[in-house]
Amino acid sequence: MAESGAEQRVKRLRAALESGRWAPVQRMLAALNPAESASLLASLPSRERALIWEMVDPADDGEVLLHLPEDVRAELIEQMDTAELVAAAGDMEIDDLADFLDSLPETVTAQVMRALSDTDRARLEAVMVHDPDTAGGLMNTDTVTVRPDVSLEVVMRYLRKRGELPLHTDALFVVDRYGVYLGTLSLERILTSDPEQLVQKVMDHELEALPVSMPAHEVAQRFQSSDLVSAPVVDDQRHRLIGRITVDDVVDVIRAEAERNLLSMAGLDDQEDLFAPVPRAARRRAIWLGLNLCTAFLAARVVGLFEATLEQIIALAVLMPIVASMGGIAANQIVALMVRGLALGQVGAGNTGALLRKELLVALFNGLLWGAAVAGVVWWWFQWPLLSLVIGLALLLNLLLAASAGLLVPLLLRRMGLDPALAGSMVVTTITDVMGFFLFLGLGTLILL
Amino acid sequence: MAESGAEQRVKRLRAALESGRWAPVQRMLAALNPAESASLLASLPSRERALIWEMVDPADDGEVLLHLPEDVRAELIEQMDTAELVAAAGDMEIDDLADFLDSLPETVTAQVMRALSDTDRARLEAVMVHDPDTAGGLMNTDTVTVRPDVSLEVVMRYLRKRGELPLHTDALFVVDRYGVYLGTLSLERILTSDPEQLVQKVMDHELEALPVSMPAHEVAQRFQSSDLVSAPVVDDQRHRLIGRITVDDVVDVIRAEAERNLLSMAGLDDQEDLFAPVPRAARRRAIWLGLNLCTAFLAARVVGLFEATLEQIIALAVLMPIVASMGGIAANQIVALMVRGLALGQVGAGNTGALLRKELLVALFNGLLWGAAVAGVVWWWFQWPLLSLVIGLALLLNLLLAASAGLLVPLLLRRMGLDPALAGSMVVTTITDVMGFFLFLGLGTLILL
Repeated sequence: MAESGAEQRVKRLRAALESGRWAPVQRMLAALNPAESASLLASLPSRERALIWEMVDPADDGEVLLHLPEDVRAELIEQMDTAELVAAAGDMEIDDLADFLDSLPETVTAQVMRALSDTDRARLEAVMVHDPDTAGGLMNTDTVTVRPDVSLEVVMRYLRKRGELPLHTDALFVVDRYGVYLGTLSLERILTSDPEQLVQKVMDHELEALPVSMPAHEVAQRFQSSDLVSAPVVDDQRHRLIGRITVDDVVDVIRAEAERNLLSMAGLDDQEDLFAPVPRAARRRAIWLGLNLCTAFLAARVVGLFEATLEQIIALAVLMPIVASMGGIAANQIVALMVRGLALGQVGAGNTGALLRKELLVALFNGLLWGAAVAGVVWWWFQWPLLSLVIGLALLLNLLLAASAGLLVPLLLRRMGLDPALAGSMVVTTITDVMGFFLFLGLGTLILL
Repeated sequence: MAESGAEQRVKRLRAALESGRWAPVQRMLAALNPAESASLLASLPSRERALIWEMVDPADDGEVLLHLPEDVRAELIEQMDTAELVAAAGDMEIDDLADFLDSLPETVTAQVMRALSDTDRARLEAVMVHDPDTAGGLMNTDTVTVRPDVSLEVVMRYLRKRGELPLHTDALFVVDRYGVYLGTLSLERILTSDPEQLVQKVMDHELEALPVSMPAHEVAQRFQSSDLVSAPVVDDQRHRLIGRITVDDVVDVIRAEAERNLLSMAGLDDQEDLFAPVPRAARRRAIWLGLNLCTAFLAARVVGLFEATLEQIIALAVLMPIVASMGGIAANQIVALMVRGLALGQVGAGNTGALLRKELLVALFNGLLWGAAVAGVVWWWFQWPLLSLVIGLALLLNLLLAASAGLLVPLLLRRMGLDPALAGSMVVTTITDVMGFFLFLGLGTLILL
């Protein structure tokens, strides 16, 4: 794979930084859009990051901050004074501003609020009362509405008088006089229909509004399954239009969810900054390592139970990592499949039985195949038929166990309200490690002594 | 976390299926949109899947097939006759049709091509010459173009006469008489500007066209960084407009990329079907397990080198899994970070040195912390100060090694053209396992014997 444009830019920029020539750095920076600047900042160590941040066009500050992972954003915010922060907040859309305020110190939040117009403050408060992980937290309140009983001609005159529409407006929303959502009138329809027609004749009645309390995860699914660009949001009770969600915010939800799954399987926070200060990064990883140390001691404790056997048959000590490691690999494959299945809403109580049957059959096949292979190699290595029977059997049993644990543990964790991606891999690997040692050494004690 | 709507639907549907009552099943199916039907089909075992597929409204067949993972799609296509396949293909957009044709048997492809109108066949051929993983493969050729020197009034008259626009049209493209791309005219601009104005006065000159050979990955980055809904695609040489890409296809690219990373870290294919037939699933997983078996034997071979030591000090056998497992955990955290960083284009030759310094410091901190903890527990357990020194030191060294391998191996693999997510985790875990045993048993031999 060739290096992407972004990588080449980072490389050139770092070269320029290191040589101390500022003019080319400034020129390169000016050519980046805010999202690219954010990506560049995230890829730099703290010292360079601070330098480059000073050179970003202040007019872009707000946009760049919004595109950064939380950790990096917090680091740069510390560097800014109140006036700069208020200015950065000034250019944001309301939904973005609501997120941004969460990262600011209390005193600055108050000042930003004061700097807003009355309308904007009311809008902001309307968004901030909602949980950020719901439709209400994702929405903007800048909807453009029309009544059903006017003609398209009137709508067009209104739009020309109004001028510029909010970003990503692909449709107007049709409401009655109480503000209740009735349907959607796309810009395309306005342009391609007879201007004499009434709005109610040409509007789309099919596009369902999203309830304000719908979880962000489901909002993303709805956008994907219906290929939406924007969607209306209504209050839960009276179905009144209170905002709209646009696809750019949904793309962020989709990406963040996918990243969270990838990183939590390794016990990491999805906001983990590539160049987090060492003490913070070390502290975060320490917890995960500490938990795993406990499970490793548990496994060692199980091995310790068989000390007497090991003293007599040292070959068991040499071979015991094989059974445990194969179980862990097989189990993690299933955990990854389950994490994806749960994220897509494709696994649940309804098909657990059928899935378990399938995975046990797969494990049986691979257990027989690789159990026989292991037995063969061990026979050739140690010339001891019974030892190869023990390891082959232990491997088969551990793969069957891995299939059951890999499938059931994520489901159980989810039911307990825990993140299957975060805890699943650790819990399942502990089971396959502990049981891998137990099965191998236990069978060894029974059969070989 | 509560069950999502999709899960509840699957549950109810399976209950209805099992009870053999067909009327409610049919009613539930009719309420789903094609993407939801696809998700439901993917979550069912083969037998139920075939039954439900028969009941899906044939008018939706094409859309449903497009939303399915490749494996499931292939399974259902086998079940359809040529007439059904030709009908399903008939309703597709050109870019989707191009993907779909790849899954069809040769003979059916020819029939589908014959059933197309001449214009559509020409369009299809224009898309199919491009690599599916480039802008050319993602694009549709249904662009609506205007000339720069006409008034908006004229544009509006043209649109009304033309009627319905292609899906997700948020803008028209402005081209000269040779078809060279000049700029973009959003529907919003048409509606909010003075109709007397000329197109060239109000069009957006800023929106850069995507070259047809741009990799899909970069297209997705561009859409995200510039919050695009649609973008023009031009040929590489003469900058002539040849198509446009819409955000719904880009969302698919983003999601597929994220899923690929998650699943390849566990050695799985991203098209892996939840209910793949057992032989196929078993065969695919077998390869990964077999590779891991080789690495496990390598580790066992290293342990075997120290058989003489183990015979004298059985405590080493009991404790040896700890050092290897902690190294694997620490390394996989860094691999996950690197996989994400590489996907976002945030790591590369430019910042490897700085990243390595940071990760080595983090590993030093955690190595000292958990090395000391392990040493303490082992002292208490075995009452043998030198043994606790050996394990503490081995753990520290293995964490430092894990940091270097976790960081450098994905970079190396990428440079060699291999997938860092797929191979990274296995290569790195092999290194930390083998070296974990070697360091611990080696130090044990040196210090304790």
